[in-house]
Amino acid sequence: MIAGDMYEMSSHSVSNIVQRGGTILKSARSKEFMTIEGREKAHKALVENGIEGLVAIGGNGTFTGAMIFEREFGIPTVGAPGTIDNDLYGTDYTIGFDTAVNTALDAIDRIRDTASSHDRVFFIEVMGRDSGYIAIQSGIAGGAEVVMVPEVLTPLSTVVDTLRQGWSRSKSSSIVVVSEGEEEGNATEIANKIKAQVNVDVDIRVTTLGHIQRGGSPSARDRILASRLGLGALEGLMAGQKNVMAGIINDDLVYTPFEDTIRLPKPINEDMLRMVKILSI
Amino acid sequence: MIAGDMYEMSSHSVSNIVQRGGTILKSARSKEFMTIEGREKAHKALVENGIEGLVAIGGNGTFTGAMIFEREFGIPTVGAPGTIDNDLYGTDYTIGFDTAVNTALDAIDRIRDTASSHDRVFFIEVMGRDSGYIAIQSGIAGGAEVVMVPEVLTPLSTVVDTLRQGWSRSKSSSIVVVSEGEEEGNATEIANKIKAQVNVDVDIRVTTLGHIQRGGSPSARDRILASRLGLGALEGLMAGQKNVMAGIINDDLVYTPFEDTIRLPKPINEDMLRMVKILSI
Amino acid sequence: MIAGDMYEMSSHSVSNIVQRGGTILKSARSKEFMTIEGREKAHKALVENGIEGLVAIGGNGTFTGAMIFEREFGIPTVGAPGTIDNDLYGTDYTIGFDTAVNTALDAIDRIRDTASSHDRVFFIEVMGRDSGYIAIQSGIAGGAEVVMVPEVLTPLSTVVDTLRQGWSRSKSSSIVVVSEGEEEGNATEIANKIKAQVNVDVDIRVTTLGHIQRGGSPSARDRILASRLGLGALEGLMAGQKNVMAGIINDDLVYTPFEDTIRLPKPINEDMLRMVKILSI
Amino acid sequence: MIAGDMYEMSSHSVSNIVQRGGTILKSARSKEFMTIEGREKAHKALVENGIEGLVAIGGNGTFTGAMIFEREFGIPTVGAPGTIDNDLYGTDYTIGFDTAVNTALDAIDRIRDTASSHDRVFFIEVMGRDSGYIAIQSGIAGGAEVVMVPEVLTPLSTVVDTLRQGWSRSKSSSIVVVSEGEEEGNATEIANKIKAQVNVDVDIRVTTLGHIQRGGSPSARDRILASRLGLGALEGLMAGQKNVMAGIINDDLVYTPFEDTIRLPKPINEDMLRMVKILSI
Repeated sequence: MIAGDMYEMSSHSVSNIVQRGGTILKSARSKEFMTIEGREKAHKALVENGIEGLVAIGGNGTFTGAMIFEREFGIPTVGAPGTIDNDLYGTDYTIGFDTAVNTALDAIDRIRDTASSHDRVFFIEVMGRDSGYIAIQSGIAGGAEVVMVPEVLTPLSTVVDTLRQGWSRSKSSSIVVVSEGEEEGNATEIANKIKAQVNVDVDIRVTTLGHIQRGGSPSARDRILASRLGLGALEGLMAGQKNVMAGIINDDLVYTPFEDTIRLPKPINEDMLRMVKILSI
Repeated sequence: MIAGDMYEMSSHSVSNIVQRGGTILKSARSKEFMTIEGREKAHKALVENGIEGLVAIGGNGTFTGAMIFEREFGIPTVGAPGTIDNDLYGTDYTIGFDTAVNTALDAIDRIRDTASSHDRVFFIEVMGRDSGYIAIQSGIAGGAEVVMVPEVLTPLSTVVDTLRQGWSRSKSSSIVVVSEGEEEGNATEIANKIKAQVNVDVDIRVTTLGHIQRGGSPSARDRILASRLGLGALEGLMAGQKNVMAGIINDDLVYTPFEDTIRLPKPINEDMLRMVKILSI
Repeated sequence: MIAGDMYEMSSHSVSNIVQRGGTILKSARSKEFMTIEGREKAHKALVENGIEGLVAIGGNGTFTGAMIFEREFGIPTVGAPGTIDNDLYGTDYTIGFDTAVNTALDAIDRIRDTASSHDRVFFIEVMGRDSGYIAIQSGIAGGAEVVMVPEVLTPLSTVVDTLRQGWSRSKSSSIVVVSEGEEEGNATEIANKIKAQVNVDVDIRVTTLGHIQRGGSPSARDRILASRLGLGALEGLMAGQKNVMAGIINDDLVYTPFEDTIRLPKPINEDMLRMVKILSI
Repeated sequence: MIAGDMYEMSSHSVSNIVQRGGTILKSARSKEFMTIEGREKAHKALVENGIEGLVAIGGNGTFTGAMIFEREFGIPTVGAPGTIDNDLYGTDYTIGFDTAVNTALDAIDRIRDTASSHDRVFFIEVMGRDSGYIAIQSGIAGGAEVVMVPEVLTPLSTVVDTLRQGWSRSKSSSIVVVSEGEEEGNATEIANKIKAQVNVDVDIRVTTLGHIQRGGSPSARDRILASRLGLGALEGLMAGQKNVMAGIINDDLVYTPFEDTIRLPKPINEDMLRMVKILSI
């Protein structure tokens, strides 16, 4: 946008991309857009190309930039929530979350396949710096023994107790899913702390999924969500909306002001947390 | 149940099964249960084993049987909706649907990979005898040019017109997703009829997915849904519910009388149908 | 080539394509190249662009065209075997075969997941008009009860006997993998004939995989094979080879004259056929 | 074996397991078998159960134990090579390797999907403590810029140079595949060392795949290899072989003395190493 690198798209422009991971736009965080000079350039390029509105895909950073841009230059933006963390207020799910959960789940499944001895513990670190959604959903779906998330403090002593209970009932290996943003540190640190607290014969292994959760062919649900929200954002923009994010809540399209999506925390589903506890018994 | 083949389950009984397709119960349709003699045997076996309530996983056939059984013998049942077709009133989604859609989508993606010449049409038959849910969702997610479902009559002339439009804009191959219950016949029949209506140089290929949609490791969403509904059915039963199906509507657990789930049709999502049309342009 | 639609490629041209199914070249069968006029145009375009040699990816049709072209115009070609059927003499495996087998196998696995009743038979039609490689390898890997291939006549009575044996030992459902080129017809026809020969209570289901076997992200082995053969074809061409196909036999790069790859049949592995029989018992 | 926990298997015992990862035998390393008392117990149990020969699936540790056991008690063993590292002399491939490579490749693909900015480097640590096979094959197949393996010293300065070359040609993100047994340390350590050597603005991310490479539904090739080697081991044993490992070399079944499989190093394929270099340019 700043470079004025634009072209008109037709249905042909998006043929054969629906199954691909990543972005064909090659868009990324822009430091220049955080400066008034950068935004002036962007505005100039938009005006020259006759662009009167924007659809921005992203999270709070993206939406904050869009709000400032609108205030300064009057170009309206409607947002679509694109982040794998599912931590945006104003929509039940964000684009990319379902795919990320299934990727994390696939990793948990593969590790469970190798679970033959009862005194081995696997730590799997999943994404979600401020949000435990990926950890909770992949943990429930994968039958993890423990799920550690930023929203709820899980004392290491509780983790040790749960693992000990599993060992005493001669369960097979245990799996602990850790959100990268856990207060106790990342999976490797937590694993080391746990190792120090229990007897040395426990074999502890760590898997850090990292960016593999950001790629891969999108799931059906993510594609449908993206189609609905893309259409919703566009139709919102054409109907005069601005500074709002299109979201799906209870299967209905809703527009939430950027201010709210940025300010309000997305509550964690208590039902899910309860299920984590029941399933770990 | 009729054979009295029962054993007590612990958390150990379900260890390492969450990732598997199919059923570990090896349950199937029973003709004997449709007779009063069969149900008497089943009742006797339950009483002998001290069983006072049932959780039944299935669709309308299963729930009808459970209602009759309760009326005759007073054994209460709470149902969990298990069918890939997603055609049950009383829940947004049924267990197995999300996995089936992703399986159908994977097939569509693979076929699209081979789409190099513009005068080839692929017909893909998906499941859903009375319900177009799988066809619509996999069709939207896969970017199909045409989706044919039982709920809406799609005249063959419309299909031909849409395909012709694609050809004239020198699109690559076209994909038509057909629900097995389509009025015009199955995919092979429809493909033959279309072939007869257009010029002979069009190359038409048919894929019939069949039972591959019923298997495979369940998706994250299906496992979470199954966990919630299994828990919901059990807690409903313990709280005195009977002749109801546990479902999730708008992310809340709800109990719907069997009579309603059996009698009421599940409406097709108009928003989705609209999106099919927009995307096919 | 005929249209002169060419551009110079760098390593950049192939960045981010290794994981994709299909072809980025959008090449396809050309009727025009089968005429002398077409080939003259192609030659002219090559000369104009300073092209002195070709690497052709394909099978016998492609290589026949290349031989004729070389005879007429002296442009040398080295071939790379690209066909999912693995029916080319001069290489142990062809590019695409391993991916196709794994796709067929995934379908067999999913169907086996649903195999709960012992009187159901699944027929799965896989590709291979003149070659049973996909059927045999996916059949062995998937534990099919019967594999029917073009190279070996499997009388329907033998199929019926094998299925009956399975039923009598109260096995779960049976799976029959059928090569599309089977003498007895395609899977649907064979299924109907079998149904007519056995008692009517048998439930027979058919899956026709079709073009889904041609797409999908290539397997590791296919990508490595393609890398080795692409490099081998190029280096062969630069070393003065022509009218030969690059292949890998016993892990060594070999060049086989087009005449041989076209004329000589690829023998079916007897060891594999024997294994099919042992596993079906 | 030591506990005498044995039962007779039929074809029924292995029905519906071919698609599963992990082991249904729940066998694992045994410290007791490393003592003469443990082996005496095992021998006693075998004699009591009328067992006259063993098929052992594993690597050098397993085969060493089998040799000692045979020397002491005269129970012959034929081995089948089961290790994902593919580091056994006497067979082209070991059971599990192809699946592990495809799992690592899937991770590389997903990470490449996210590769939008040119100054980001992804380090992916794959298994192979003493062997770079997984790293090399997944690296070639995934188009990695650098592959670091235990067999060949890759100085960090070379890695830095290759990465710098990529940046200067404005390539997208770079991927470095590291074998866990790399002399320079594990992926996290190497990443930190690299970061210290280049300018601070490079964004370095690490993924440690760990045990996910040991699980998952086996690939077609692994299942076929396992079927051939299982049959080969059994037929070898019945034909009087002992202290040998069944392997496939150049598509032929061969028996290699345990002494050789244990003593001789498996050479790394020079052709593959050369290809890694070519592709990284």
